[in-house]
Amino acid sequence: MRNADHTETGAPGPLGADELRSLDAHWRAANYLSAGQIYLMANPLLTVPLRPEHIKPRLLGHWGTSPGLNLVHTHLNRVIKARELDALCVWGPGHGGPAVVANSWLDGTYSETYPDVPRDGAGMARLFRQFSFPGGIPSHVAPETPGSIHEGGELGYSLTHAYGAAFDNPELLVACVVGDGEAETGPLAASWHATKFLDPVHDGAVLPVLHLNGYKIANPTVLARIPQDELDALLRGYGHEPLHVTGDDPAAVHQALAAAMDHALDRIAALQRRARTEGVTERPRWPMIVLRTPKGWTGPHEVDGQPVEGTWRAHQVPLPGVRDDAGHLRQLQDWLRSYRPDELFDAEGRPRPEVLACVPDGPRRLGASPHANGGLLLRELPLPPLERFAVEVDKRGSALHEPTRVLGGLLEAVMEATAERRDFRVMGADETASNRLEALYEATGKAWQAERLGTDEHLARDGRVMEVLSEHLCQGWLEGYLLTGRHGLFSSYEAFAHIVDSMVNQHIKWLRTSRRLPWRRPIASLNYLLTSHVWRQDHNGFSHQDPGFVDHILNKSPEVVRVYLPPDANTLLAVADHVLRSRDYVNVMVAGKQPSFDWLTLDEARAHCARGAGAWEWAGTEDGSREPDVVLACAGDVPTQETLAAADLLRRHLPELAVRVVNVVDMARLLTPGEHPHGMPDPEYDALFTRDKPVVFAYHGYPWLIHRLGYRRAGHENLHVRGYKEEGTTTTPFDMVVRNDLDRFRLVMDVVDRVPGLGVRAVALRQEMADARTRHHAWIREYGTDLPEVADWTWSG
Amino acid sequence: MRNADHTETGAPGPLGADELRSLDAHWRAANYLSAGQIYLMANPLLTVPLRPEHIKPRLLGHWGTSPGLNLVHTHLNRVIKARELDALCVWGPGHGGPAVVANSWLDGTYSETYPDVPRDGAGMARLFRQFSFPGGIPSHVAPETPGSIHEGGELGYSLTHAYGAAFDNPELLVACVVGDGEAETGPLAASWHATKFLDPVHDGAVLPVLHLNGYKIANPTVLARIPQDELDALLRGYGHEPLHVTGDDPAAVHQALAAAMDHALDRIAALQRRARTEGVTERPRWPMIVLRTPKGWTGPHEVDGQPVEGTWRAHQVPLPGVRDDAGHLRQLQDWLRSYRPDELFDAEGRPRPEVLACVPDGPRRLGASPHANGGLLLRELPLPPLERFAVEVDKRGSALHEPTRVLGGLLEAVMEATAERRDFRVMGADETASNRLEALYEATGKAWQAERLGTDEHLARDGRVMEVLSEHLCQGWLEGYLLTGRHGLFSSYEAFAHIVDSMVNQHIKWLRTSRRLPWRRPIASLNYLLTSHVWRQDHNGFSHQDPGFVDHILNKSPEVVRVYLPPDANTLLAVADHVLRSRDYVNVMVAGKQPSFDWLTLDEARAHCARGAGAWEWAGTEDGSREPDVVLACAGDVPTQETLAAADLLRRHLPELAVRVVNVVDMARLLTPGEHPHGMPDPEYDALFTRDKPVVFAYHGYPWLIHRLGYRRAGHENLHVRGYKEEGTTTTPFDMVVRNDLDRFRLVMDVVDRVPGLGVRAVALRQEMADARTRHHAWIREYGTDLPEVADWTWSG
Repeated sequence: MRNADHTETGAPGPLGADELRSLDAHWRAANYLSAGQIYLMANPLLTVPLRPEHIKPRLLGHWGTSPGLNLVHTHLNRVIKARELDALCVWGPGHGGPAVVANSWLDGTYSETYPDVPRDGAGMARLFRQFSFPGGIPSHVAPETPGSIHEGGELGYSLTHAYGAAFDNPELLVACVVGDGEAETGPLAASWHATKFLDPVHDGAVLPVLHLNGYKIANPTVLARIPQDELDALLRGYGHEPLHVTGDDPAAVHQALAAAMDHALDRIAALQRRARTEGVTERPRWPMIVLRTPKGWTGPHEVDGQPVEGTWRAHQVPLPGVRDDAGHLRQLQDWLRSYRPDELFDAEGRPRPEVLACVPDGPRRLGASPHANGGLLLRELPLPPLERFAVEVDKRGSALHEPTRVLGGLLEAVMEATAERRDFRVMGADETASNRLEALYEATGKAWQAERLGTDEHLARDGRVMEVLSEHLCQGWLEGYLLTGRHGLFSSYEAFAHIVDSMVNQHIKWLRTSRRLPWRRPIASLNYLLTSHVWRQDHNGFSHQDPGFVDHILNKSPEVVRVYLPPDANTLLAVADHVLRSRDYVNVMVAGKQPSFDWLTLDEARAHCARGAGAWEWAGTEDGSREPDVVLACAGDVPTQETLAAADLLRRHLPELAVRVVNVVDMARLLTPGEHPHGMPDPEYDALFTRDKPVVFAYHGYPWLIHRLGYRRAGHENLHVRGYKEEGTTTTPFDMVVRNDLDRFRLVMDVVDRVPGLGVRAVALRQEMADARTRHHAWIREYGTDLPEVADWTWSG
Repeated sequence: MRNADHTETGAPGPLGADELRSLDAHWRAANYLSAGQIYLMANPLLTVPLRPEHIKPRLLGHWGTSPGLNLVHTHLNRVIKARELDALCVWGPGHGGPAVVANSWLDGTYSETYPDVPRDGAGMARLFRQFSFPGGIPSHVAPETPGSIHEGGELGYSLTHAYGAAFDNPELLVACVVGDGEAETGPLAASWHATKFLDPVHDGAVLPVLHLNGYKIANPTVLARIPQDELDALLRGYGHEPLHVTGDDPAAVHQALAAAMDHALDRIAALQRRARTEGVTERPRWPMIVLRTPKGWTGPHEVDGQPVEGTWRAHQVPLPGVRDDAGHLRQLQDWLRSYRPDELFDAEGRPRPEVLACVPDGPRRLGASPHANGGLLLRELPLPPLERFAVEVDKRGSALHEPTRVLGGLLEAVMEATAERRDFRVMGADETASNRLEALYEATGKAWQAERLGTDEHLARDGRVMEVLSEHLCQGWLEGYLLTGRHGLFSSYEAFAHIVDSMVNQHIKWLRTSRRLPWRRPIASLNYLLTSHVWRQDHNGFSHQDPGFVDHILNKSPEVVRVYLPPDANTLLAVADHVLRSRDYVNVMVAGKQPSFDWLTLDEARAHCARGAGAWEWAGTEDGSREPDVVLACAGDVPTQETLAAADLLRRHLPELAVRVVNVVDMARLLTPGEHPHGMPDPEYDALFTRDKPVVFAYHGYPWLIHRLGYRRAGHENLHVRGYKEEGTTTTPFDMVVRNDLDRFRLVMDVVDRVPGLGVRAVALRQEMADARTRHHAWIREYGTDLPEVADWTWSG
């Protein structure tokens, strides 16, 4: 047991004897509280010898990483206090929940947030019992944890969250502990290059602490098992100046870590001063710390003859048998006593002054940082009147606009209006221009700190458009930015949003939980613009065709997720205005970037979006005297165009058929109110879609999504959905819809097939439609273009 | 225009004048053919002046990366021929489809694969016209491209595919071009560390060529804009010896690249010899090449006064207006003529001998490598009789086994049986042991070439279990391994399979397309074992709970995807045996690792899996004389247990109720035959589920999946599904099912609520069930464990 006295070694360093002793006391206290949370449900101060009934029936938690997190937290306390820093820490190994909770209890924020867990013996008892206990708190750092913006369960996103928090927070230090397991993930490996995107003038600093405790769950880690010169080269290659702290002697490590933190913070201050006051534009080589200490440090060295401390066996619960095995129980008691709790806590269980000597005050405490509860700092986004950007619609379905380009005007205005505040960013994986949002560059540039050439365009050190060919970085940066109280939007090729499926899962889980915590203030929603969508991948074909992100999102907590498919430019504006004002949601907008028809005026678009779904009377042939014969429903820009073209054909060829055209913008409207807050009550649904008439639904994505949303409705058996069914390649836009049976001709055939009693003219029309499809196939093979009648079509209504 | 004469410069290097001239001719020919594919639909040899009608109506393709790919291909040809190498190349910038197709046409493999595209003028005309043309070939490298295992459209996976191809192919050289755009992605950034997993004895070599052409779609790239010493440090940090080739003078670059290739291949041969014959175990620092040449090199230097060559403007089609703008058309003609096609092709359009001088013969041609058509090399996996691993089932629902541990025995036997052949690997993101597959370590170790300590276990230089904390690497390695004709399995925590959602999309697309190409031979299926699933995340809670990967998979091409939810150990064995024998599928198995009840003997399990879904007569209370009153359906191990516990309660409390228990293993059985090859015909479905009786379906994942699969069936309105609805935390297994209303008590209440006319005893039973749920809540808050009646329950039937 190495805990006998951590302050005896005469290692050199910046810490005087008193400071060393108090820092070590803080660390021991945090370690004691971490182990206590994992094991104890009673007798928290070991006032009586440990008995099995003091032990939790199920031992759940991760000890291995906890002493390292406690060490970093202790030393961050020291420098924050000494330098009066405004700081935040992202704990990458967030499975080390007990450590961060322990520190929050020590600095008082836990008890301020949860008054039923006071900073005394009764509170400690509750702190221990609640951890990983049903009805208590999760085993990981979580939204429940004060001071956190990061659930470290999945691993991979800590550093990108840290950078997101640092952007446009020039006075903030964001420390980030990166575990060596996490460092093997792709997203983390890419995150290091964020050094080329952090502006030393307008952004804060990120201080990565790469914690090499050597093991993941059951294996050594790559970065812990390469020679130090190779690791050093790697980190310098990422653009850092690495500071190495290695050891297993606590006093020596305290001194070395304190020295490294001082050096790093001096260096950061110098780099910022150089850039801010001396105008130096050379990219800084930011310092970082490599901390190499044993996994499960200060825990049981051996258990049942097997080495534990310093090995992967320390990952979760190093003594698993304490309730049944007297030897394990004794070993646990020895372990806990090795921290000398009586020196750390007074008789009432309150931390002694020496333990708390390093803890900063008020909002400087890591547990109390307002940046970790971003809603506290959030300001309303200044959104201009949409009239400035709306397109004129003199005649529906005749003029063409690129909807995302129209949206670009709105985003430019927001970017312009936040030029001083700097609390709005737009992310894109090298696609902002491709997605037709170039107007943004009138208001800001693309963040770039690396080398520049004369031919470059729109690069800027202080740019607030973020472009990097990594959806992971875009997503993580935006999450970190939003969680610290700012606003933003991520524009992505539709298919490649799937790259961040798992990341958005975690963000939705975070929001779902934080919404249930009254002390967590609402933050700006995470807004996606999915464009370059499945129907218009003319250049790229099959690999770029996947509309399934919407399906993924709609599986998640309904209180958080919203999906919009605006059918034209003005509707996109109305939707964007709404989502940019919203809070605590994940909003997905799917909209095309190619020229497409305008259908609604701005006022109509606003009204349509407010309803979320509604009949377009001007497009149908109802006379109002009776229910329609058929409903043509649509969602998405391309399906809307095909549906209106089908309605056009029907009006001209079967004028006696009463057709209703329904457009759905807000997909959750198809659900019932019990399933989603936006759900449509049955009477309203029945009035819109009828209870018994055929509904031919042209949908943007996988057709069964519409069935999954609508299966509870009356008349569901009359619902016939067309959508994307994985038929794709490099081809023309119209060929894409033909391949997937979503084209106007097919929709007319569907109507004829489903409406009874239409007679001989309908039969002829059906044949005409089938012939048109045949004609299409022949034409496209010969000329490589779409039929003139399709290419030149405009709405005739 | 720099194409005047590429061989004039007197740059020093290994190439003699003749070889330099012929290599340059090959490169020019490939460049000519690449540009021709993008632009021309007639007049391929420029035998008459270019006219607008020679130009395709839609110009689609990516020129920017093509000259670089052509250069690398030319020089790979040279070294393959000179050294008689067995080689494969993974083209990361696979959007440069024209380049790889051009090279395949030049080496003859294109015409051998597609005899309607011969290597002459008529073939060239067809080659040009078909590219990115409706009914032709895609714009990217794709399954249609001979010699390819990699669709480079999404970007990020080239290097991990290359390593997968190299594993257990000791005589193979896998070259891999990594674009500097792709290098920004997370998966690619992580892939570099594969150097710690490649065994110089049993694996082949990977030669990365990092191609820095400086730009992505619209931006500079990070790695092209850091100082060379920083880049060099980065690559050395990854474990490589980088060789830098930089230039824009073709002759000088030819010489430098030839020298670098020679150096790299000498070095690879030396490192392999050292390891294989001298027994050196030090990890090699493998060579790699950094090739820095202009984007769109040799293309138009300026267009309309804007610089194009060497900038992002060269990314797609550098001269967009050739059909309408006479100046552009003239510039295109000048550009194409600058390659001097008359020197490259004879009057019949056949490449001249000098052009082909560097091309290797037969299967050494990159377009003809059998490794790129893995089915040619695939051998049947030696699968032992399942009887060796099956668990005895004397009494159903009484003994407990960990299903994945039982599966581990089978996998160990396969690993053992392939010890010499080395064509089977198991991947896991640090979870193989956590997922209870440790038996594997009896037969092999975990691949590891980095440093080792005395406390390490199961690490081995030649291990065929791959453990790295990156699902991206596991997935990519396995894809590369399978595509080159081997077998394998990826075991993952269920929730984190979403990390590879987008990767598996691309693999499914690849299989969907390659199945339609007769010359592509079937490869082994990609098999997932999803375990540590949503219901048993006792340690980790909410962040680790997500059953949606199955939903994602079932959206994709039905001819490729298969999903299995075996309810116990023997069923898992039967499913695993099936999927390991299958071809060209993506199979998902979801199975628990925690002790759970055995229900079926091996014979019963086999029969049940063959049906895919069936009634468990022994579990119900039907007498066979009439249809049941209610169907209790289930899919997944935990739902099956709760369903049987519910059936148990119903049998004891309402014995007169005729209950049928149906278990579904193969989820696609719920679809119709028209929707999926495994779909169940309606009569069979009706016989199993009835047409009009209530069906209470307990499902493992999101409940609406069952509705999405079954909405076409008769009686769908009687289908009531329970499943996971995003209610999770760190808690007990039974509390998890209660929180999501999937517990036995709730299922009994559902039955009582849905079967009409049950009378007063049923009302009392319903109340008793509600009381049990209340009792559960109180008990768990107090004791942190499950009710004894639940914890001790066994099947009483």
